[in-house]
Amino acid sequence: MAKKELIGNMMIAQSGGPTAVINQSLVGAVLEAKQQKQIKKIYGSLHGIKGILEEDLMDLTRESVKTLEAVSQTPSSALGSVRKKPTAEDCARIFAVLQKYNVRYFFYIGGNDSAETTHIINEEARKAKYDFRCFHICKTIDNDLRQNDHTPGFGSGAKFVASAFMGDNLDNRALPGVKINVVMGRHAGFLTAASALARVYPDDGPHLVYLPERPFAMSRFLNDVKKVYKKYGRCVVAVSEGIADRSGKAIASLFIKETDSHGNVQLSGSGALGDLLAGEIRNKCGISRVRADTLGYLQRSFPGVISENDAREAREVGRLAVKYAATQFAHGSVAITRKPGKRYAVGYKRVPLKSVAKETRHMPAKFINKDGNDVTQAFIDYARPIVGKLPPIGRLKGVPVKQK
Amino acid sequence: MAKKELIGNMMIAQSGGPTAVINQSLVGAVLEAKQQKQIKKIYGSLHGIKGILEEDLMDLTRESVKTLEAVSQTPSSALGSVRKKPTAEDCARIFAVLQKYNVRYFFYIGGNDSAETTHIINEEARKAKYDFRCFHICKTIDNDLRQNDHTPGFGSGAKFVASAFMGDNLDNRALPGVKINVVMGRHAGFLTAASALARVYPDDGPHLVYLPERPFAMSRFLNDVKKVYKKYGRCVVAVSEGIADRSGKAIASLFIKETDSHGNVQLSGSGALGDLLAGEIRNKCGISRVRADTLGYLQRSFPGVISENDAREAREVGRLAVKYAATQFAHGSVAITRKPGKRYAVGYKRVPLKSVAKETRHMPAKFINKDGNDVTQAFIDYARPIVGKLPPIGRLKGVPVKQK
Repeated sequence: MAKKELIGNMMIAQSGGPTAVINQSLVGAVLEAKQQKQIKKIYGSLHGIKGILEEDLMDLTRESVKTLEAVSQTPSSALGSVRKKPTAEDCARIFAVLQKYNVRYFFYIGGNDSAETTHIINEEARKAKYDFRCFHICKTIDNDLRQNDHTPGFGSGAKFVASAFMGDNLDNRALPGVKINVVMGRHAGFLTAASALARVYPDDGPHLVYLPERPFAMSRFLNDVKKVYKKYGRCVVAVSEGIADRSGKAIASLFIKETDSHGNVQLSGSGALGDLLAGEIRNKCGISRVRADTLGYLQRSFPGVISENDAREAREVGRLAVKYAATQFAHGSVAITRKPGKRYAVGYKRVPLKSVAKETRHMPAKFINKDGNDVTQAFIDYARPIVGKLPPIGRLKGVPVKQK
Repeated sequence: MAKKELIGNMMIAQSGGPTAVINQSLVGAVLEAKQQKQIKKIYGSLHGIKGILEEDLMDLTRESVKTLEAVSQTPSSALGSVRKKPTAEDCARIFAVLQKYNVRYFFYIGGNDSAETTHIINEEARKAKYDFRCFHICKTIDNDLRQNDHTPGFGSGAKFVASAFMGDNLDNRALPGVKINVVMGRHAGFLTAASALARVYPDDGPHLVYLPERPFAMSRFLNDVKKVYKKYGRCVVAVSEGIADRSGKAIASLFIKETDSHGNVQLSGSGALGDLLAGEIRNKCGISRVRADTLGYLQRSFPGVISENDAREAREVGRLAVKYAATQFAHGSVAITRKPGKRYAVGYKRVPLKSVAKETRHMPAKFINKDGNDVTQAFIDYARPIVGKLPPIGRLKGVPVKQK
């Protein structure tokens, strides 16, 4: 299928939470499209499907290679993003606009919700017997897309998180106490787990890692902290923003009910969860120096802290989506696979849109320790090459002076 | 004075909040001491004066150059730090320990409180007619030491803050709303002001900058945000953790009284101020997407985001303190001065300990705009070379497509 040459215009858009390398995928797609003769105009839609609905478009054919290369190295979605899930009415309208602009090639960069949107738009085209090529280009710092070994954006987000914990562990070593850092990831713990890559010396933090994949119990958490604090005189904790109790209720929401006066707090962009965990430790563990930071939006947008493998792979999934659409497949998503063997090598394959849509992937059991408060070596081995080189950390030999 | 050769051992310690380059000063001092024949053993005290009081010392003479160089590039205080202000009793005990270990050269890396401690220890030695050389080595991300054009640690902290705002401004541009970032700096606004270096394009944030040097009024703040939001459809705000009202009361403390159930929250290591400002905007400006992050401890310890000038100057103040003590002065602090002219060039001078002790330096009026909600070009010109190169930011030309 899709072997005959389909002449027409292209539309591309970005959706969901930005990443540090999402523009690599955009630029990979646009540069490949410029090579494909049957693709004429390249339209960029502003703020995802919102730009299509409002016909707020940008002519990407007019961008120079120099500008595109500069944009590819710039974090956050250059076309703007959106969190809107289209209704059936929206989809009909989107499809009408695509036809009006003779768009035959549609690419949507995003996570599982965007894959679902792409799937629905593709179904509309099929029903209308409109000759159409339609690809989802994966991205998410959460690393929670099915079919993928890992997703573009995760490596750089994880590099930021691991770097942050490296520095913060050293800070905590200099001024001991308990330090909690809340990491993004509502349903999947991959990004929080990446904090473990920060460890260089055996006593380095994070000493405890809590993931949404395991039920969080406050009493066990407090006991864990006390144990580590007794051993090291300090404790660095990585907590996923999405930790939930045995019934699946987010710990953040349980607490916020009690303490927030505005009733309007969300998981990201708020320090509430960290502050509340810190308060519990202060009150119930008899430890006075307790601090909490929420790493926040920096995790997905910090410039200059980029995994090289992540940047290269993000570019490649964008490029391949256009290449597949132009030469091989009518629709799908480009997934990243991992080749077996000790040396890190990835492959790419076209997978059906439905197979990455909607549902999220979680940390497999082999990546989480038995106590549910740390990752395993298998996770470290999995994540290290995706994240790449971390800053070198030096430590004094520290020969003690005999007391006089 | 101090021209005769004084033979003896050396003690060095680190104090206060760590910085990304504080170990450059340590290593600069240790490597210089190795060159000075009259300095015999080099002791490192663990956790500032606490290590002297408890005779918890490390033999730095035994550290290889390779280890020292690796440590110099590692953030946070390699010897550990402390927040303790010594009592008169402590000072007497410190002085006794220094004598016991035949310490004739004492160096204390820290801020204005550490300069005060160094001064008191020096007075003890003078009273006892103990031949002694005693230097304070400046550091603070807050940039609030008197006598200095700027202080080691500020440049790298400011680079982190500016980079964070660059990324966060792009994130906010992709998903518009109001975004507040709370920046460290209890009394001086330099670090918060550095957020303005993030601006590349005229519409870039931070659009508003609030410093502790100007009284903060909630109603004016809300009006400012509304105005920016009306103009750009989004607003990025930099807020110093130390903002206070007209009477000098910290805004954080005013709010925390009302909302915190534990009664135990501090300015740093808590997201309370950001969350509460976000709540006010949500409730009173009719803007729904409002987020707040507190940049937290990452500002002073993030590895790999280092200003080259800052690292070089931190090394140099450490080196010069030892050189001055060994060859020229009995006591003092090494201050960084700025040479006039368009090209960035610094000088170093020995200043009296008392002249940098206790009091903090604030942002001069010429660095703050009339409305008290932004910095001036004079501040940008002052700060840019201290911070150095920031990540390049690319933007699409963005040729609009005519609607069909």
